[in-house]
Amino acid sequence: MAEPFRGLAGRPADEGNVSMRILVLGGDGYLGWPTALYLSARGHAVGVVDNFAKRRWEMELNVEPLIPIATLHDRVKAWREVTGRDIELFVGDLRNYGVVAEILRGFRPEAVIHYGEQPSAPYSMMDHNRAVFTQTNNIVGTLNLLWALRECAPDCHLVKLGTMGEYGTPNIDIEEGFLEIEHKGRRDVLPYPKQPGSFYHLSKVHDSHNILFACRVWKLRSTDLNQGVVYGMETDETALDPRLATSFHYDEVFGTALNRFCVQAVAGVPLTVYGRGGQTRGFLNIRDTLRCVELALLHPPAAGEYRVFNQFTELFTVRELAELVQRQAAQLGLRVDINHLENPRVESEQHYYQAMHKKLLDLGLEPHLLSDVLLASLLRRVQEHAARIKRDIILPHVRWAGGPRAAAGRSRSGAASE
Amino acid sequence: MAEPFRGLAGRPADEGNVSMRILVLGGDGYLGWPTALYLSARGHAVGVVDNFAKRRWEMELNVEPLIPIATLHDRVKAWREVTGRDIELFVGDLRNYGVVAEILRGFRPEAVIHYGEQPSAPYSMMDHNRAVFTQTNNIVGTLNLLWALRECAPDCHLVKLGTMGEYGTPNIDIEEGFLEIEHKGRRDVLPYPKQPGSFYHLSKVHDSHNILFACRVWKLRSTDLNQGVVYGMETDETALDPRLATSFHYDEVFGTALNRFCVQAVAGVPLTVYGRGGQTRGFLNIRDTLRCVELALLHPPAAGEYRVFNQFTELFTVRELAELVQRQAAQLGLRVDINHLENPRVESEQHYYQAMHKKLLDLGLEPHLLSDVLLASLLRRVQEHAARIKRDIILPHVRWAGGPRAAAGRSRSGAASE
Repeated sequence: MAEPFRGLAGRPADEGNVSMRILVLGGDGYLGWPTALYLSARGHAVGVVDNFAKRRWEMELNVEPLIPIATLHDRVKAWREVTGRDIELFVGDLRNYGVVAEILRGFRPEAVIHYGEQPSAPYSMMDHNRAVFTQTNNIVGTLNLLWALRECAPDCHLVKLGTMGEYGTPNIDIEEGFLEIEHKGRRDVLPYPKQPGSFYHLSKVHDSHNILFACRVWKLRSTDLNQGVVYGMETDETALDPRLATSFHYDEVFGTALNRFCVQAVAGVPLTVYGRGGQTRGFLNIRDTLRCVELALLHPPAAGEYRVFNQFTELFTVRELAELVQRQAAQLGLRVDINHLENPRVESEQHYYQAMHKKLLDLGLEPHLLSDVLLASLLRRVQEHAARIKRDIILPHVRWAGGPRAAAGRSRSGAASE
Repeated sequence: MAEPFRGLAGRPADEGNVSMRILVLGGDGYLGWPTALYLSARGHAVGVVDNFAKRRWEMELNVEPLIPIATLHDRVKAWREVTGRDIELFVGDLRNYGVVAEILRGFRPEAVIHYGEQPSAPYSMMDHNRAVFTQTNNIVGTLNLLWALRECAPDCHLVKLGTMGEYGTPNIDIEEGFLEIEHKGRRDVLPYPKQPGSFYHLSKVHDSHNILFACRVWKLRSTDLNQGVVYGMETDETALDPRLATSFHYDEVFGTALNRFCVQAVAGVPLTVYGRGGQTRGFLNIRDTLRCVELALLHPPAAGEYRVFNQFTELFTVRELAELVQRQAAQLGLRVDINHLENPRVESEQHYYQAMHKKLLDLGLEPHLLSDVLLASLLRRVQEHAARIKRDIILPHVRWAGGPRAAAGRSRSGAASE
C-alpha cells in the first residue's frame, strides 16, 4: 500500500487552513469525481452522492469512456489506499426528497457542489422521452435539494453547475448572470435574458430561476457556475493511480468538443465541423474547473445571495479548435482532415460573441490555457488508449429539427456536445 | 328541452365565417369551461381535455367552489341540451405523451388552448411535494404537448396561458414578452427578464422558455398570453343555464383576489390586505379572457413565431381593490372592514409598475372595465349563494418563507391568489 498522501503544495497562504464538509452530487461523473479528489486532497471532509444514472445512459446508447472506469465504490477504496483519505459514499437519487434530506442530515455539509444532472444536449434532443426525462431529472433534483437545504442546512453554500449555453448567442455582451438595463429613462439590474439551445440547456435555465427564487425567499446562498465546455483527461489527483481515472467520453452524446476532436484525430476520422464552424464558445481545462469550484467555496456568498460566475478561460470557434487539433496532430505524425458538414443543430454558425469572465479571475484563478504543449499531451494520452476507440460512436445522429422521426443523420460532428 | 341555441350576435363582419377545430386543455376549469362554451357558441368545433386533477386538489384541501359544479360529462350534455351544440370530451392526463398524441391525432385541432396546468401560487408554496408536483405537472404537460404538436399537428396554433406574474415587479416598464436592449453600444431584442414570485409562477416561466425554443427549432407557432388576475363569475354562455356555471373559487389557494374580496364582503369577514397593500397587479374580467383568446385564434402567428400578449385591462393595487369592494358593498348595505396583516408572501409592497398591454387592444379588444355596476352585480351574485360560503377556507395559511415547517399563519389574506 502506498504512503499516505500528503496533499498538494502551492496553496496561497490565506487558503491554507480552511477545512469544510463538502458534498459532491454526481460524484461518479467526469467532473464530480476529480472535484471530490481535489477537495479531499486539500483536507476537506468530502462526501459523494450518485445514483449511477450516467452508467445506465452509457448502456442505453452503447457508448463507453475511453479509459475503463472502476465502480465508484472501488475508486473510493483506491483513493483511501493511495492517500489514506476517506471519501464518504452515498448512493441515492436526488429525485427522492427523503433521500436528499437524509443525506444532508447525516453528512451536515457546509457546501454542496451540484453536478448531479443529465449533462448532454444531444441526449435531451433524441426524443420526447429523453427531453422530458432531462428536464424532470434536473429540475426535480435541484428543487428537492433547495427544499432540503431550507429544512436541514439553511446556511450551506450551494455551488451549482450551470452552463454558458444558458445565454445562447445574443448580439450584445454576455455579463455574469445579471444585466443593468436602462429602458424608457428608468434603470434596473435584472437576470440576464436567456436563449438556451436545447432541452438540456433549458433545464439549466429553469434551475437558475428556481435557485435565484429560493435564495430570495428563503435566504439560501448559492453560486451558479455558468461553465464553458470542459476539456482534458486528467488532474494531479487522477494521475496518482490508474484506478483513479475519470470518465472521459468522446461519443457524440457525452463527449465535449475538444475531447472528441482529439479522439477523432487519433482514430483517423476527419474532424467534422458543423456548417461554417463559426460557432464561438467558452472553453476551459478540467483543472481550472476544480480550481474555480474551490475559489467559490473559499469565498462564499452571503445569506440570501445568488451570484453567477461565468466559468471559462478562452473563447474559440469550432473551426479554430479543429485547426488547432489538426496542427498538433501533424506534429505527432498524424494526418487529420477537417470536414464541414450540414449542421444537425439549430444554431447560428456566425455570430457576435463576447462574454465576461472576470469574477473568478478576480478571486485568483490562474488559467491553464490551451497551449500547444497541453494539446499535444492530451493527444498522446488518447493515443495510449487508441485500441479502445469505438469509431461507430463518434459520428452524430441526433438532429435538433427536421421532420418527425426524421431518419438519423449521417456523418455529422463538430460543435460542443454540451 | 330548450330551443337550439343560435349563437351570439355582434361579431365583427371580418370574423364571421371562421370556423376552427379547437382543443381546450383544462376544459373543466374556471376559464377552460367558459372558453369552450364561448367558442362552441361561435360555431367552432370544440374539444375539451381534462384529468380532473383540480377536483382532487379541492378534496385534498377540503375547499369547494361557491356554486356546485356538475361533472364535465354532465355539463357537456347540458350544453348540448341547451344549444344543440356538441363539445367533444377527452379524459386524459397531459403528462402521458401517448394520451396527448392520441388526442391530437384523433381530434386534428387547428388550435390548442392550453389551460391545463396547476394554477395556484399558494398551492405551489405549501410544501416541497406540491412545489415539485406543480413544476413537473406543468412542465411535462407542456413539453409533451410541444413534442406531440411537432409529430402530429405541426401547423396547429398553440395558445398558451401564461401569467403577468412571470415578470415580477421590475423597476422598468414591462413590455410584451421581449425587450430591446442597448448594452455597451450594441443592440438586441431579447426575451424579457423574468422574476417570478412562486414555484407556480416559475413553472410558467419555464414553459415560456420551452415554447419559445420549440417555435425556434421546430417552426411551431404559439401565442403566450401573459394574463393578469381574472375576476368574475359568469359569461353569456354560462348564464344560459344553472348547469353551465363555472367553478368559482374564493378560498386562499384557488380564489383570485377580487373574487375572494367579494366573498369576504358578503360573509362579513374583514378584507385582509397583505402588508401595505401597495402591490400593483393587472386585472381583467373573465369575459375579456375569452375574447382575448378568440382574438389570438383569429389572428394566428406565422410558422416559427412565438409571440407574447400581455392580457389584462386595468392596473390596481390590492388596497385600491379592497376599497372598491368596501364602497360597493356599502351600497348594498354591507358593512365591510379592511385589515392590513403581515404579508405571508415575499414580495414588494410598494413598487414601480407599468406594463404594456397594447397588442390585444390593437387586435380589437374592447375591455369590460371594473365599473361600479359590474362589481355590484358580482356582489349580488355572491349574495345569492351566501349560505354556501365556508368561512374557514377564506383565510390564508400558506407562508412563502419563515422557518422550516413554520406554524401555519393565521388570518392573513389579500393579494392575488394567482
